[in-house]
Amino acid sequence: MQKFINPASVALVGVPRKTGNGSFNNAETMLRYGYRGRIYPVNPHVGKICGLTAYAAMAELPEQADLAVISVGRDRVLPMLDDCIRSGIKRVIIITQGFADADAKGAELQKEIVKMARQNAVRIIGPNTMGVLNNFNRFTTSFVDADFPERFSPVSLIAQSGVIQVAAKNLAWNHWGKAIDIGNGCDIDFTDCLSYFAGDPETKIIVVHMEGMMRGNAFLKLAAEVTRQKPVIVFKTGRSRAGAKAALSHTGSLVGEDAVFDAAFRRAGIIRVRNASELKDAIHALMLMKEMKGRRLGILTVTGAGGIMGVDACEDYGLEVAALPNGLIKELEEGVPDWIHVTNPVDIWPIGMIGGRYRDVSRIALTELLKSPSVDGVLSIFPTTDSPLHTDLEMADMVAQARREAGSGKPLAIWPYVDVVSAIDRLEATEGVACFDTIEQAVFGLSVCYRYYRIRQRATPNPRSFDVDWPAIEPLLAEGRAQKLLTGDAALTLLSLFGIPAARGVTVTRREALLKAASALRFPLVLKLAGRAFLHKSEWDGVITGIKSGEELLQAFDTLVENVQRRNRDLAVDAVQLQEEAAGWELILGLKRDAQFGQVIACGLGGIYTEVFRDISRELVPIDRSMAFEMLASLKTYPLLTGARGKAGVDLDAVIDALERLSYLASKIPDIAELDINPLIASPTGCQAVDARILW
Amino acid sequence: MQKFINPASVALVGVPRKTGNGSFNNAETMLRYGYRGRIYPVNPHVGKICGLTAYAAMAELPEQADLAVISVGRDRVLPMLDDCIRSGIKRVIIITQGFADADAKGAELQKEIVKMARQNAVRIIGPNTMGVLNNFNRFTTSFVDADFPERFSPVSLIAQSGVIQVAAKNLAWNHWGKAIDIGNGCDIDFTDCLSYFAGDPETKIIVVHMEGMMRGNAFLKLAAEVTRQKPVIVFKTGRSRAGAKAALSHTGSLVGEDAVFDAAFRRAGIIRVRNASELKDAIHALMLMKEMKGRRLGILTVTGAGGIMGVDACEDYGLEVAALPNGLIKELEEGVPDWIHVTNPVDIWPIGMIGGRYRDVSRIALTELLKSPSVDGVLSIFPTTDSPLHTDLEMADMVAQARREAGSGKPLAIWPYVDVVSAIDRLEATEGVACFDTIEQAVFGLSVCYRYYRIRQRATPNPRSFDVDWPAIEPLLAEGRAQKLLTGDAALTLLSLFGIPAARGVTVTRREALLKAASALRFPLVLKLAGRAFLHKSEWDGVITGIKSGEELLQAFDTLVENVQRRNRDLAVDAVQLQEEAAGWELILGLKRDAQFGQVIACGLGGIYTEVFRDISRELVPIDRSMAFEMLASLKTYPLLTGARGKAGVDLDAVIDALERLSYLASKIPDIAELDINPLIASPTGCQAVDARILW
Repeated sequence: MQKFINPASVALVGVPRKTGNGSFNNAETMLRYGYRGRIYPVNPHVGKICGLTAYAAMAELPEQADLAVISVGRDRVLPMLDDCIRSGIKRVIIITQGFADADAKGAELQKEIVKMARQNAVRIIGPNTMGVLNNFNRFTTSFVDADFPERFSPVSLIAQSGVIQVAAKNLAWNHWGKAIDIGNGCDIDFTDCLSYFAGDPETKIIVVHMEGMMRGNAFLKLAAEVTRQKPVIVFKTGRSRAGAKAALSHTGSLVGEDAVFDAAFRRAGIIRVRNASELKDAIHALMLMKEMKGRRLGILTVTGAGGIMGVDACEDYGLEVAALPNGLIKELEEGVPDWIHVTNPVDIWPIGMIGGRYRDVSRIALTELLKSPSVDGVLSIFPTTDSPLHTDLEMADMVAQARREAGSGKPLAIWPYVDVVSAIDRLEATEGVACFDTIEQAVFGLSVCYRYYRIRQRATPNPRSFDVDWPAIEPLLAEGRAQKLLTGDAALTLLSLFGIPAARGVTVTRREALLKAASALRFPLVLKLAGRAFLHKSEWDGVITGIKSGEELLQAFDTLVENVQRRNRDLAVDAVQLQEEAAGWELILGLKRDAQFGQVIACGLGGIYTEVFRDISRELVPIDRSMAFEMLASLKTYPLLTGARGKAGVDLDAVIDALERLSYLASKIPDIAELDINPLIASPTGCQAVDARILW
Repeated sequence: MQKFINPASVALVGVPRKTGNGSFNNAETMLRYGYRGRIYPVNPHVGKICGLTAYAAMAELPEQADLAVISVGRDRVLPMLDDCIRSGIKRVIIITQGFADADAKGAELQKEIVKMARQNAVRIIGPNTMGVLNNFNRFTTSFVDADFPERFSPVSLIAQSGVIQVAAKNLAWNHWGKAIDIGNGCDIDFTDCLSYFAGDPETKIIVVHMEGMMRGNAFLKLAAEVTRQKPVIVFKTGRSRAGAKAALSHTGSLVGEDAVFDAAFRRAGIIRVRNASELKDAIHALMLMKEMKGRRLGILTVTGAGGIMGVDACEDYGLEVAALPNGLIKELEEGVPDWIHVTNPVDIWPIGMIGGRYRDVSRIALTELLKSPSVDGVLSIFPTTDSPLHTDLEMADMVAQARREAGSGKPLAIWPYVDVVSAIDRLEATEGVACFDTIEQAVFGLSVCYRYYRIRQRATPNPRSFDVDWPAIEPLLAEGRAQKLLTGDAALTLLSLFGIPAARGVTVTRREALLKAASALRFPLVLKLAGRAFLHKSEWDGVITGIKSGEELLQAFDTLVENVQRRNRDLAVDAVQLQEEAAGWELILGLKRDAQFGQVIACGLGGIYTEVFRDISRELVPIDRSMAFEMLASLKTYPLLTGARGKAGVDLDAVIDALERLSYLASKIPDIAELDINPLIASPTGCQAVDARILW
């Protein structure tokens, strides 16, 4: 990657003759940007471009350039690439659009590019890209002109679009240090770039703009390591297309595409942001404040109203308002009227105003908050102004002094209202201090620092293995793979072979056989439609519960037949499933294979409310015991599972065990497309799968 | 209010001797701000302040000032107020803190202020305020110095804190035109200020910062009228304290304080914002773009990535991506390579680049989108830059021309990335155009314009009256008021007297009377604990369902007694309630009296999931038929009520009728504190209240 990002010489293939206004000439933008390497324009129709000697073909260059940048019409890209390859170039950026981003012909051309590159060990960025940016070396391949930024950060960007580079003022905090637009990503992709920036000492934070994934598992595996060293922030767009795909199973529709990204990013320790504002604030927070080691926030404010906004924001972003240390309260209340009482938020306005010792009080309070073992981070709210009447409100020295006295590295987010840009710089000169435009952004920033601390602390998953009876499993697998489907008893049997308790039951094909089948079971019983025609049984009124006798069983069978006939005269009831009735909470457990990330395991609320509330947790396979527990604990219905309002809770250990075993099953049978256990009935004494289907 | 906001002369009582740095001298800030009226400092210890003659007492002023501003220690406020009153002053701002905002003594002092003011027909702003700001007249009573802003808008602020005035750069779009900090609001309150700004021609948008409400009903009634003329935006803080109060009933805990504010603001057509960023964007959008008459958005972009972000934002903020008009597609595709296909978002980059007619293509596309009857508003994404190489990217003329050609007033939100401040001004010079920092803010802004259109279009509620048998109701009411509580049959009877169907049942006090009572009812039956000791029956295992015979009934009674004894040996089962069992969906209906806004009606999902999912709609009483329908339709579980997966839906008309009748009940018995119908069982053939309790 060094030759892409830090080339000593660049050939610009297809650089336009025209320069100046409206020319989109990348030789010109490169020169204006201040690139200090050697630039070789390649254009057979002209002698000089921007004062640079132009060459008619790659072969005529005085040296073998580190990098070639191609920007010609799409039909001329292949010959030009060929020209580059023949002259020994190993790194090529293809700016041109109209490949896999456009139509079938473009996709074909792109395949051809990849083939040529592989055969010749040439690496490609693009096509359909703006290329790379390296502010450490004043290098850009952009065809849109931009001034070299006064400030930039050691933050590197991997994007699928040029706009994120160009619009850094809107989408980053300071300008990016380095950026790669992978465009269509035909060769160099997210994982290549991540790998490079992971080892790059000039990169402290990695930002990824992602529309779709490539090599998902490789990316996640690498990210899981990188995120222990550097924060990785992903701005994944195209959220709203989630769940648009039709799915056959419950789990299929509940595990939408976007929810899988959430689970995948969480697993790898990636911080996901939802939009540009969050992106900016997250970069700013992690760059300046780094980690926050707990969720307890101290709030220091000169305005009660601001304190209340801070408390609101804590609730929005999952932080807590810390309980104030006693010493601090006493020290501040000394010598002020007795009607002033200090709580958190610490409102120092009345204290500071009355005593005329506004800055002293601020310093004492801030120092104590930063020192206190019951505070993990501080939000501070005070005015900054250029007015000659308020130089006593200048707080940068106070902040620096409080930091020195406290001697702690805790993050301090400031809302310096009436923003004076120079004051912000002075404040941020103190380590661990960041200023934000609004209170909610400051608290969001702190919450990101807390999230990153948790990411660094996270345990490595330690999934269990289980002994299973493979000779018994194989024939069921063969049947499932052949039919692309297992339902009813067959599916339940497969689950029970992996140690997941399943309801005792039997499939019956004739009315006459019902009573005999029932004699081996215990009433009350449940009778269900079986077979491929009745995948969504509730749509057929296909389940009858509470059957207490043989007589009721025969009646129930007749009712099922009627229910089917009423909806479709031509459909016969070939088979029914007879089960012992289980009482308890209805859960749903499931699997879904994602094209990028492999098996995803899900669990949540079953029954009629499943689709309405979508109270579902999702994780990538494999999971361990504590992750299985977390999946349950993060459900809204978790309090009900543990017992509420006088009801006993369910046997959580049993459900956790079932989840671990399902995860093991998924890792051993990775070709399953979707699997539903719906419902898994959980009771105080255990759990059991009552119905299941598995799709290949 | 004119004399507060636009005084010809001001007396400053208690202005400090000290001027300059750190003095917080409001005479000095007033002069620096450029106030052109007459200023009379009142201070017995000094002859001149800032070159102004100081007076020893109010009586010595050369004229009767329009306004007095008091800022002395809290113990000296009353004498100073007395001084003002005796000199004939009718308008007083009390800056001083330490009244109802502080302690009991402060609250007493504040009461005294109010008494003196009422007796002498003097109006007060404060105490604990920064006072007023009027940029149209360069007037401020602030003791914090600020420069007169270069720009301000016809946006007026009513706040409970000075910070919102001072931090206008962070909390408003341009600076406020006028602002009133009501402080503790001991006299002049939200409603007074709203009334003034409603009639003020210099006010186009009214913004309210609110921590708590005063005169809630008067405010809402006025706001409901004002919002048809001018947008009213409320930034209500203190959200997180919602629901902190203990409540006896389900409805009590489900209708949290903050949810009541939501319902109240919605009723009055007020736009609520959650934080400072939303506040800023909402003001900006309404100021420049005004209304958007539908939710269909056209997106014009030079970057595919930006288009995707726009689509994400549409989903986040409730707008739709419009289907593109055919004519537009044809016109743009003409003369470009056949691999370019136009959809919405309209990505003009390849078309504009390839043809070299970037600005023309932009103008055609923008004009067509603005003209199209299938588009209600437009989001446009393009770069702005100062680079001399891209003067052809200057879009302000293009935008103005497109607007002229389209001849429509549709809102146009622009994300001009690589923000150049002067370019923003040029773009916003065209009517109906607003530029935002990010795509999501632009779409949020458009969604606010759509919301305001709906607010102006909203119907006036038209609640029904019902004939009820008051002679039968009175004794029940008397009983309820005496005992502060009605439960079981008594509560159900009261409901049924208002026409809300209630389950047939009977209360029985002895085991021996059960069978006789049952003979008048139809099996299956339900047996429940009755009486004040068992308000939360489920905590006592106090309900037994599915009783099919007399024998099972006696068994059930014994079980209930056991269930109680197991939990509390000393508690006797004095009475049980016997009901016919109803099958259907469990809903919860309820009332809660709010101290500010009166009766709130609620409905939602009943049963075990009530507290977990809180799928509840809330409205202020009274509601009409269409509002009752909307309450149901806005529930997440609404699709289940209308029938799903082969199940019949419930009789919605019956539930709507019950809601209308409950609203009527609430309006006729306004002293009810809380009322629960839990559950109301709804079935395809009707609905009925199965259990209820009413608290006074």
